[in-house]
Amino acid sequence: MMTTPAAPAANTTPLQARPLRLSTQQPDFEAQFAQRQHWSAEADAAIEQRVQGIVADVRARGDAAVLDCTRRFDRLHAPSMAALELQPSELQAAFEQLPAAQREALLQAAARVRRYHEAQLQACGQSWSYRDADGSLLGQKVTPLERVGIYVPGGRAAYPSSVLMNAIPAQVAGVAEIVMVVPTPDGTKNPLVLAAAHVAGVTRAFTIGGAQAVAALAYGTQSIPRVDKITGPGNAYVASAKKHVFGQVGIDMIAGPSEILVLADGSTPPDWVAMDLFSQAEHDELAQSILLCPDAAYLDAVQAAIDRLLPEMPRAAIIAASLNGRGALIQTRSLEEACAISNRIAPEHLELACREPQRWEPLLLHAGAIFMGAYTSESLGDYCAGPNHVLPTAGTARFSSPLGVYDFQKRSSLIEVSAAGAQTLGRIASVLAHGEGLQAHALAAEMRMHPSTSG
Amino acid sequence: MMTTPAAPAANTTPLQARPLRLSTQQPDFEAQFAQRQHWSAEADAAIEQRVQGIVADVRARGDAAVLDCTRRFDRLHAPSMAALELQPSELQAAFEQLPAAQREALLQAAARVRRYHEAQLQACGQSWSYRDADGSLLGQKVTPLERVGIYVPGGRAAYPSSVLMNAIPAQVAGVAEIVMVVPTPDGTKNPLVLAAAHVAGVTRAFTIGGAQAVAALAYGTQSIPRVDKITGPGNAYVASAKKHVFGQVGIDMIAGPSEILVLADGSTPPDWVAMDLFSQAEHDELAQSILLCPDAAYLDAVQAAIDRLLPEMPRAAIIAASLNGRGALIQTRSLEEACAISNRIAPEHLELACREPQRWEPLLLHAGAIFMGAYTSESLGDYCAGPNHVLPTAGTARFSSPLGVYDFQKRSSLIEVSAAGAQTLGRIASVLAHGEGLQAHALAAEMRMHPSTSG
Repeated sequence: MMTTPAAPAANTTPLQARPLRLSTQQPDFEAQFAQRQHWSAEADAAIEQRVQGIVADVRARGDAAVLDCTRRFDRLHAPSMAALELQPSELQAAFEQLPAAQREALLQAAARVRRYHEAQLQACGQSWSYRDADGSLLGQKVTPLERVGIYVPGGRAAYPSSVLMNAIPAQVAGVAEIVMVVPTPDGTKNPLVLAAAHVAGVTRAFTIGGAQAVAALAYGTQSIPRVDKITGPGNAYVASAKKHVFGQVGIDMIAGPSEILVLADGSTPPDWVAMDLFSQAEHDELAQSILLCPDAAYLDAVQAAIDRLLPEMPRAAIIAASLNGRGALIQTRSLEEACAISNRIAPEHLELACREPQRWEPLLLHAGAIFMGAYTSESLGDYCAGPNHVLPTAGTARFSSPLGVYDFQKRSSLIEVSAAGAQTLGRIASVLAHGEGLQAHALAAEMRMHPSTSG
Repeated sequence: MMTTPAAPAANTTPLQARPLRLSTQQPDFEAQFAQRQHWSAEADAAIEQRVQGIVADVRARGDAAVLDCTRRFDRLHAPSMAALELQPSELQAAFEQLPAAQREALLQAAARVRRYHEAQLQACGQSWSYRDADGSLLGQKVTPLERVGIYVPGGRAAYPSSVLMNAIPAQVAGVAEIVMVVPTPDGTKNPLVLAAAHVAGVTRAFTIGGAQAVAALAYGTQSIPRVDKITGPGNAYVASAKKHVFGQVGIDMIAGPSEILVLADGSTPPDWVAMDLFSQAEHDELAQSILLCPDAAYLDAVQAAIDRLLPEMPRAAIIAASLNGRGALIQTRSLEEACAISNRIAPEHLELACREPQRWEPLLLHAGAIFMGAYTSESLGDYCAGPNHVLPTAGTARFSSPLGVYDFQKRSSLIEVSAAGAQTLGRIASVLAHGEGLQAHALAAEMRMHPSTSG
């Protein structure tokens, strides 16, 4: 007895990925759809409490607290913070020691991401002003943040592409100092992450992570400079810490599990669409992949492709868990209806696997990124098309935007009122200020209307 | 005995406003300055807990919870939510019944604010795209939020100008539905606030406030529609509630007490500057007014103006408390040094009371709004110059911006990869995806490089 333990049941059954199959015509569609959509991003109270403790400790003890946390959570014992700083020479060496193909791919991806964000800077990141009829100047000046922190996940999921996607927009915006933090559990450094930091123009880098790294960046320690904003994805502790320090510093967004929604007219090879669903699902068991198509036979074909391709995938177990738990193949009455459903979901990634993507794009109101046409796999956007891959998740595309140059800039209004303008504006301001019971406001305006009588 | 109670001591002493007088040359300047700057925006744990309870109650019970809170906190007993909705006809009537001067001032202010925000929309709120050498399209489309909530404080400080400043940028951005909430303690409605809602294009309005109004907008109730973003200032409960629902909806910022920093070269009449300091101080005892000037005699003259003007001010007690508790008159070595100090403070309002404001403006890196030249009193900007008066406080101008059209828009990346682009990009993505251990990402890219072999 107990000498031949039975293999776990899961290993004896072939893996299957069966996204929920729905039709918008079935009577219980709304209920089923709502249930599949249901996913709560509510913060875990226990995590919040631990994070508050860590943040308070880092504020009180600085470096010592960060070192303690790093010992405890990353099993990394460092005598001082200096020992956890990555020197530029180490980042450069990591880059130079990469295989040539990786080096070249990193450089090409960085160049494309940089070009896109430069276009963004030109399109929406410039100062502007005008003069009104009275000669008063009104406008806004746009300036870069001085110092930002970028959080790069380490451990199981280390993404060099995230280094590019966070650091390059900051650099294009003109941020003088880009401080990267990346946890290296057990001291294991990812050469591609270090190389990406070199390519992307990271100014300083520390091998710390978790809530302690967020707190250190937000408040500063003896060794880690206080930053103005923290961007980049992370686990639940990082997300909670970012929300906690919001206000003390800027943050980009609170990221949830990744999602893709594919709208198909049946013209894209089913294998391609199946692989696109996989590429979302392989991130995380909580990732969500949904396909909408008016053609039931096409949905069958994609399911067949899923069945055929799944066994070849190294991350098949994660893919299956994600598709079984959160995936859906939905037959819609039309592509118009599919667009309407997409707008309700406000997906992070939205693929238009259609012959006429330009026809459908205007109907799509809420999405982090829209990938148009059969050739535009989401994975091209993740790495190198140019647009940012840090995108609003969990329906927040209703109100937020991809990470961009604008996240690393801020604006100051400019107002220069002329003597004539002080007359025109003074009358309006005086009436309204008295209406609000703010007499000093009114007097400050009125004094400028009769300059000879005061001063 | 006890028949003639002594008047409180405060009433027997004339009010005095003595901002702390400092010089950057005094040895303890840094310590004194740090102490005056020290002000914590830390949330109050007791308030946070009460807010969490209110939010949970509104999520669970909807209208009933909001009605209960409104009874409890605003002493306003309504039989149903419908009774708390302000009809468009009531807003219009409020406008029509205003004195002609107020009506005219509201319309002129609204027109100027609208024009400024239209210029902002043109300058930085447009969609853009380009095609690369392979014919792939890359860009970003900009779309308005669908529905937003604006919070307008009621009670002691009711600011119609805030209605304009929140609603007009939303309207210019193209937001379809603008839902205003404004508490009316004891049922007292402010006619100017209602009239401003009419002028600014508010779509629906409810006389509710506090954390319960924020929760209702964030999650929706039977009667109150769920919005995509909540903007506008409020008390500590409102601020805490906004932070709590952030992520579920967008929020603008967490506003702290208002601040002004005046940089003077001595050329602006001291009375004007004294009144500008007052106009900040009259908001709130925690408001902060600071004057920086290289000329000690000018600082003396401003103090003399303060002494002379204070007794005339209806809100003298608040002004005195603010200036005594948080104000400062600081002699600097030069205007350059004054600019450097201003950059450390990152003030909400920054007045350049100087002869050559254009010379100093480029040195000012962090500020919500910069008011240039003697005629540009902050109060003109508060009401009618055109730029928004909702500005980042408490040093957050380091990383955030005035409320603007951009707060009511969001962006979606657009990517349409050509067949040729799929070859170029596929190679890069494949290398990087394999480097990250994401094989489905790699395969999705590779399949598009050899379209004949799949599908």
